[in-house]
Formats: sequence, C-alpha cells, structure tokens
Amino acid sequence: MKLNLKTALSGPLLELEQTLLNKSNLIESWFRNQWQKHKPPFYSSCDLRNSGFKITPVDTNLFPGGFNNISQQFLPMCIQAITIAVERCCPTAQKILLIPENHTRNQFYLQNIWQLKNIFVLAGFEIRLGTLNPEITETTKIELNDGKNLILEPIFYDEQTQTIKIQNDPDFEPCCVILNNDLSAGVPEILQQSFAKINKNKQKILPPIQAGWTTRRKSKHFQAYDLVVQDFANFIGIDGWRINPAFGSCKSVNFHERQGEECLTHNVAVVLERIKQKYKEYGVSEKPYVVVKADAGTYGMGIMTISDASEIVGLNRKQRNKMSVVKEGLEVSEVIIQEGVHTIETINDFAAEPVVYMIDKFIAGAFYRINDKKGKDENLNAPGMFFEPFAFANNINNDDKEIPNRFYSYGVIARLAALAAAVELEN
Amino acid sequence: MKLNLKTALSGPLLELEQTLLNKSNLIESWFRNQWQKHKPPFYSSCDLRNSGFKITPVDTNLFPGGFNNISQQFLPMCIQAITIAVERCCPTAQKILLIPENHTRNQFYLQNIWQLKNIFVLAGFEIRLGTLNPEITETTKIELNDGKNLILEPIFYDEQTQTIKIQNDPDFEPCCVILNNDLSAGVPEILQQSFAKINKNKQKILPPIQAGWTTRRKSKHFQAYDLVVQDFANFIGIDGWRINPAFGSCKSVNFHERQGEECLTHNVAVVLERIKQKYKEYGVSEKPYVVVKADAGTYGMGIMTISDASEIVGLNRKQRNKMSVVKEGLEVSEVIIQEGVHTIETINDFAAEPVVYMIDKFIAGAFYRINDKKGKDENLNAPGMFFEPFAFANNINNDDKEIPNRFYSYGVIARLAALAAAVELEN
Repeated sequence: MKLNLKTALSGPLLELEQTLLNKSNLIESWFRNQWQKHKPPFYSSCDLRNSGFKITPVDTNLFPGGFNNISQQFLPMCIQAITIAVERCCPTAQKILLIPENHTRNQFYLQNIWQLKNIFVLAGFEIRLGTLNPEITETTKIELNDGKNLILEPIFYDEQTQTIKIQNDPDFEPCCVILNNDLSAGVPEILQQSFAKINKNKQKILPPIQAGWTTRRKSKHFQAYDLVVQDFANFIGIDGWRINPAFGSCKSVNFHERQGEECLTHNVAVVLERIKQKYKEYGVSEKPYVVVKADAGTYGMGIMTISDASEIVGLNRKQRNKMSVVKEGLEVSEVIIQEGVHTIETINDFAAEPVVYMIDKFIAGAFYRINDKKGKDENLNAPGMFFEPFAFANNINNDDKEIPNRFYSYGVIARLAALAAAVELEN
Repeated sequence: MKLNLKTALSGPLLELEQTLLNKSNLIESWFRNQWQKHKPPFYSSCDLRNSGFKITPVDTNLFPGGFNNISQQFLPMCIQAITIAVERCCPTAQKILLIPENHTRNQFYLQNIWQLKNIFVLAGFEIRLGTLNPEITETTKIELNDGKNLILEPIFYDEQTQTIKIQNDPDFEPCCVILNNDLSAGVPEILQQSFAKINKNKQKILPPIQAGWTTRRKSKHFQAYDLVVQDFANFIGIDGWRINPAFGSCKSVNFHERQGEECLTHNVAVVLERIKQKYKEYGVSEKPYVVVKADAGTYGMGIMTISDASEIVGLNRKQRNKMSVVKEGLEVSEVIIQEGVHTIETINDFAAEPVVYMIDKFIAGAFYRINDKKGKDENLNAPGMFFEPFAFANNINNDDKEIPNRFYSYGVIARLAALAAAVELEN
C-alpha cells in the first residue's frame, strides 16, 4: 500500500526514502509473499525514528492504546481491516468481548477504547466491554469528558461452555475475546482458565496472551526483526543497518542493588562501538548513544539514554530508582540496550516521531508523538508529549513522482516490525 | 460495514431503511457467512432504485466503468480491497495486465481506466494496459483532456508459456489479467486461447470471461438474486418483494420482424399483475410499470418503459428500431421484463439513482446518476445524465442513532446483488 500522508518533514527525499520508493513494487510483492507465510498480529503500533541516514522501529506495541489519535480519514480503512482481522479467528463472528486496561480514570485511554469499540460497531459487530478490574463488580458506566460513555461489565469463566462471558448476561456468547490489555500485571485467572482450554473451545483470545508483557520481551522482538530485516535487505539490496537498530540485552539486572552492572556496561560498550563503526562508514557526525530500557513493559517508563559505558556505574540513586520500576509497579530485572536513533522530524521546532498503527496486515493510521520538553535524541514518550494525526497528502489520488510520498518508508518499516511481531509470536 | 454516506434524501428514515439498520448486526454476520460460501466478484457496480416502499438493484455490472466518479475519500479503501481481490488469484502477484474496452475516444471511460490503474499502482502492483483493439498495432499513448495519459499496448497469446503477454515486451509476465471489457462484441481469440488452458496455466483472467455479455444474461442474474433474497429475507424476517424487482424473460424476440410479441405481451402482463397485487397489499398508489430491456448488454441501450401490455403490439417503427440494437451494434433477441421501481431520490429536483461500487466483498464507493431530462420512472442511463459522488457523512465517526445512516440500506442491497453475481458465476 502506497498511502501518501503529509509528513512534517519537507525538502528533497533522503536517499534511503528514495531507494524504498524506487523499489516499492518489489517491496509490496515481498510483503504479500511474507503475509502468506506469517499470520499478522491482530493489531499493532510501531514507534519509528527517522535520523535521515536510518529509519527504524524503536518499539512495537501489540496492544495499541492510541486509536483516538488517528485521523478520522482512516476510519473506513480501519473498519475494513478489523473485519478481516476478526474473520481470521471466527469467520462468521457476530459477538465480540473487548477487554481494556484496568485504569478507568485515564481519559486518553478511555477515548482510545471508545474509538476502538466504534470501529467494531461500524464493522457490524455486537461488542461489549468486559473488565478484569477486581474493583468493578457491577455493570459500570464510565463517563467520558466529551459526554460519551463506556459500559464496563465484569466477566467470568464459564466452566461448562469453557468460554469467557459477561457476569450479568451469560447468554451473550462472544466468539472472540479481543485484548487491549497488555497483561503487565500478569495473566489474570480468567484468562489462564480460558488459555488452558484454548485448543478445545471455539472462543479465541486475540492477541494471544503470550503477546502480553508477562511473557513478551523486546529483545525477542528485535531478534525476530533482525531475521526479517536480513531477508528484506538482501531482497531489495540495502544495508540492513539502515533500517535496524543494534541492540544487546541483560537478563538479571537489579538497579537498586547495582546487580548486573557488568553486563550492562559491556553491552552498552558493544552497541556504542557498533554505532561508531557504522557512523564512520557512512560519514555520520552525530554523537552515538544507546537507550537502556526495561525488556518487558511499556508506557515510556524505565528508560534512560547513555552515550558512554562508564555512565552505568555512575548512576545516582534517583536514576537507579527511575530505572527500577515500570507500569503496575513491576520490578525491572531484564533490560534491553538499544542503539539510539535521533529524530529529524520536528513540529513547531519540537522533536517528533511517527507512530504507525496497523490492524492485521493493513496500515490503519498514524500520528506524530511530539514532546515540547525533550530533544531529538531523547525518549519522547514522557511528560510533555502530545499527538498530531497524519492526514492524507493532497496528492492521495496521484502517484505523481514530483510530489514525493514520504510516508511510504514509514509504512514499510512499520510493516517490517509487524512482520517481526508475527515471527516473534510464532516462536 | 456500516459506512455512513451523505444521501440526497432527507427526512425521517423510511420503515424499510429502519428495519435494515435495526438488524444490521445480524445482517453483517449473515454477509460474513455468505462470503465464506461464495467467492465475491472481482469488482462490480450496482444501479439501485429506492421508491420509498422498496429498494432494489435494477442492474449489476461486472465490468464497472465509473471509478472516476467515486469520491477520492474512498481511494484508501479501494487500495485495500484491490489488494485482497488480487490476492485471491495470485497471492504474490506483482505484474498485472489490465484490458480496457476498445473505445479510445470516450474521455469519461479513459478517466475510469486511469483511476482504476491508479488504484493498482497505489496498491503496489506493476500494471500495464493491454488492448484488444485491432486498430492499435503499436504501443500507443492516449492523451486525456486533463493532461494525464494512458499507454495502450497490443497483446498476444504466447503458445509456449500459455499466457497473455505484451507484444513489445514479452518479458513482462502478468500473473493476472484483469478485464474491464464486457466482451459485448464476443470473446476475442486471444482470450479464448487463454481460456482453453485456464486450468493448466498460472495466469488467471478476472472477472472470468463467462462474466462478459457474450454469455451473461440479466435474467440469470436476477434468478440468482431471487435465491439470495429468499434466504436473506427469511433470515431477517422481511417480505422479499421489498428488495426484489419481479421479472420475466423472453428468449427469441425480433423487434424488427415483430417476432416474439406474444411472449413479451404475456410477460409484461404477468409482471404488471404481480406489481398491482403488491401495490394493493401495501397501499401504494403509484402507477405500476415495467422496464423491457435487452437480456445481455449495457450502456443504457435497448430499454423501454411500459405500463400496459397492449403497448407491445402497438410499438412504432422508431421504437422497434431503438429496441433492436445494443452496444457494438448487436441484435437483441433475448429480453428481460423487469418490474419498474421509481426513484424518490432527487438532486436539484432532477431524478437520481444511487450507483454503488464494490471491489471484492467491500464497498468501494458510490455516486448518484442524475438525469436532467428524465423522470423518476424513466431510465436515467441516457443522454442528459451526470454524476455526483457520495461523500462520507459528517458523522462517519459516530454510530449515533440520531443521525441516521441512510446509506446503509443501499450498501446492503448492493452487496446482495454482488452475492447474486457470485452465485450466478458459479452456475
């Protein structure tokens, strides 16, 4: 799909962008081939960085929480795509149970759920929201700031039918349970019970619970991405590094007790060295840096930027505290050390990075994450961030070479990341 | 898919529209089920009539020629849908050969081909236009009025590979041949040669040549539509007549020689009688009429409106001449007699009828056919016609019950017609 969206970036196409565009027919054919071999994730979002000399994913989320940030222009495509995604699990599905995160006060997240639910409704599914939140024991109406509302309903595992159902309405039999809950706090018993019977019963859980942060690791994702890039880069004839951030990982780190510092220091040094070599090869004058982050989890927590291996030993108490805990208060013990890729995208002079949403194998929208408090080489998923949806370029109806399709390369990288997630979930 | 498009019609929802909307979840599930059983046509367009008390297809075209009349808002959906449609015939397709109609001077049609080609290009296919026009013996550039152009290339059947190829570039090996030529003038030898080997070779022709007017008959389509409606109407509990025009057909008519008048008179009387009964049942005060048209062919030729069976015998020479010949000068011998459904849709006081486009099982756009010289009970596909694309309603992001989705029922009827075409092609 060669969707042309308005990017903040202007000026002539960078060489990498141009290469991908020139080979777009080959690339599209390659993707079609890959999606025959690998089942796309139900949905996903991918944070990208474009440094000019490389464009890479930095994070791939399998429980995307920003559908509210996508332009309404994408809604018809989302509807088409969700139909196809649901049909993979139950071809004649009518009833769907959507399980959101437990937090019921985050208006942004609630708007995401409203929008996601809306996509299912417009695709013609009967959808209800089941909650895993133990504090919600009765059907509960949640008011949204803009006057809309959501109905959350407690759920249970029905031993007899071996399916998850709504407590107050066991006659509602969902063919499919869709998770928008990344299971950071572990896999709740209801899901475990269902999972134990997953091959026996007709009710499927999507994404599968193995996609949750209880089991998922970023380092496994980027291992899979390595394989995907190797194949892709060979096929179209580019240096895989141009689209792939180097990384290492440490398995037993305890920032509080300064355990695992040796592994961290070593990996930071190795990744930095790799970057330096490549910068030399390509004549890049930027300062190399790595991003150290929790190998499981999301929400922009437990992240730091380092440009010298010696910094690891010199972390002060505040920094170590910050790195210790991620979402749901979980202790960090596994860590990924990822090549830092700075962003050249800015909006009103603020650093910005593209976030691309996918449903099944289809691009479902995109927005910029912008941060008015962070620089081009910092994590933008932090206080100060706001969002700006991508709109279609005016030349949507035109493949005119004079109006370059800058979004194309972002779509390619996001799809490579989704493909890596597919490979990752197969393993 | 519950796409909400702006209709010309305003005022409260009609009872039939409301019924279909109320049952939309059931209906969507029913369609999903049907598309598991029947392979959707590659693409199709459907002329609809909404008389208030009934909404029906009046014509289903399997070689749609108005992609240029669709709103650009639909382009992303068309791209997604064409990807899925092509993947059905060759999953890793890269090269496509599109064969348009032979007329090279109809600017509207050329714009249609440009837009159709553009959809393939944006979906990442390498597409070229092969021509069956015997007058085009060299690669020919056709200039469009707006400065765009199309390259038409002569094609041949390669005995060795048993595939259709481009004469000047036999290395271009199309995985798929897409027809936008309704074969009114018969099946050219190149296609016949390929058809003879169709099960042996990898190159597929879509739509299949049996979908062309050489073999296709409207009466067979509406027979299949009868079956589809029977099932659908039972399922959702409505009277099938509300969405189905009555019809009859005559097999050996010659308007010049006044042959077959008895059959015509009989069928006109039977259909009119059926309409009268139903009008009485529903208390409809409109004047019943039938539309007599060629059972094969399109382009709004060979059509007349009749409200009394005796009119058949009284046709004057001019009327008989008009009915004798359709596109490509073909003699009419088979005729369909279809219940006339007047349209209550008007745009600037001109009679209008919705035309819904589909690619695979997806709605791909819609426009109104308007005619400033014809009335609500006449054929609008005639001189004086122009087009107005449907745009998305403002409430595209909203399933709010207060802003009714009038387009929904049109999408349902168009999909029933596409399903009937699928059943028709299976037979």
